[in-house]
Amino acid sequence: MSLKESNIDNYIPKIPKIIDCRIEKTLNVIGGKWSFYVIRELFDGIKRFGELQRQINGVSPKALTDTLRHLEVQGVLEREAFATVPVTVQYKLTPKGEDLHQILIEMKLWAAKWA
Amino acid sequence: MSLKESNIDNYIPKIPKIIDCRIEKTLNVIGGKWSFYVIRELFDGIKRFGELQRQINGVSPKALTDTLRHLEVQGVLEREAFATVPVTVQYKLTPKGEDLHQILIEMKLWAAKWA
Repeated sequence: MSLKESNIDNYIPKIPKIIDCRIEKTLNVIGGKWSFYVIRELFDGIKRFGELQRQINGVSPKALTDTLRHLEVQGVLEREAFATVPVTVQYKLTPKGEDLHQILIEMKLWAAKWA
Repeated sequence: MSLKESNIDNYIPKIPKIIDCRIEKTLNVIGGKWSFYVIRELFDGIKRFGELQRQINGVSPKALTDTLRHLEVQGVLEREAFATVPVTVQYKLTPKGEDLHQILIEMKLWAAKWA
């Protein structure tokens, strides 16, 4: 899929000059708790809807659909549909989404120490 | 307040031998989105309920009460009550809670780059 111009912000990060207190911005982009699990699964590479549903324990199809749509709108992931029968839909992280990796790594480190 | 024996796990981290994929554990301890804001406020130091409510935009008293209770049960913060009139209640992070700092720093860095 070619890179649409409107998506360029999901590929090229800003150079931060001032680190302010805007964890709000990150939390709004991520959305709810399912997003963390979707993002974690997609660090492994491109996945289809069914794969994500199997790998994320307890997520309903509706919650997964809503989460994927939210993350797509936020530019964290991209949805690709192929005209197979039945249609194949797969999801992959944008660079903006890939860059959430360090947050999840810190969550794992914390769990290893305290949970 | 003296350190109760039952709270010792909130003061002494484990030495992680294996870093596994348990972001679930961290997310369960943190709970919902308000927790991130409470934790951020308490990085500045001990705070009272009213201070937290003023500083966390849009949180209701019920949501703040539930969040503080959840984080107390999880050992992320400690509640101290003083027999003043009216009673004074304040909250502070445990070392287990302080150690969530790096996760929030990574959220700020990501926001500075992408949001």
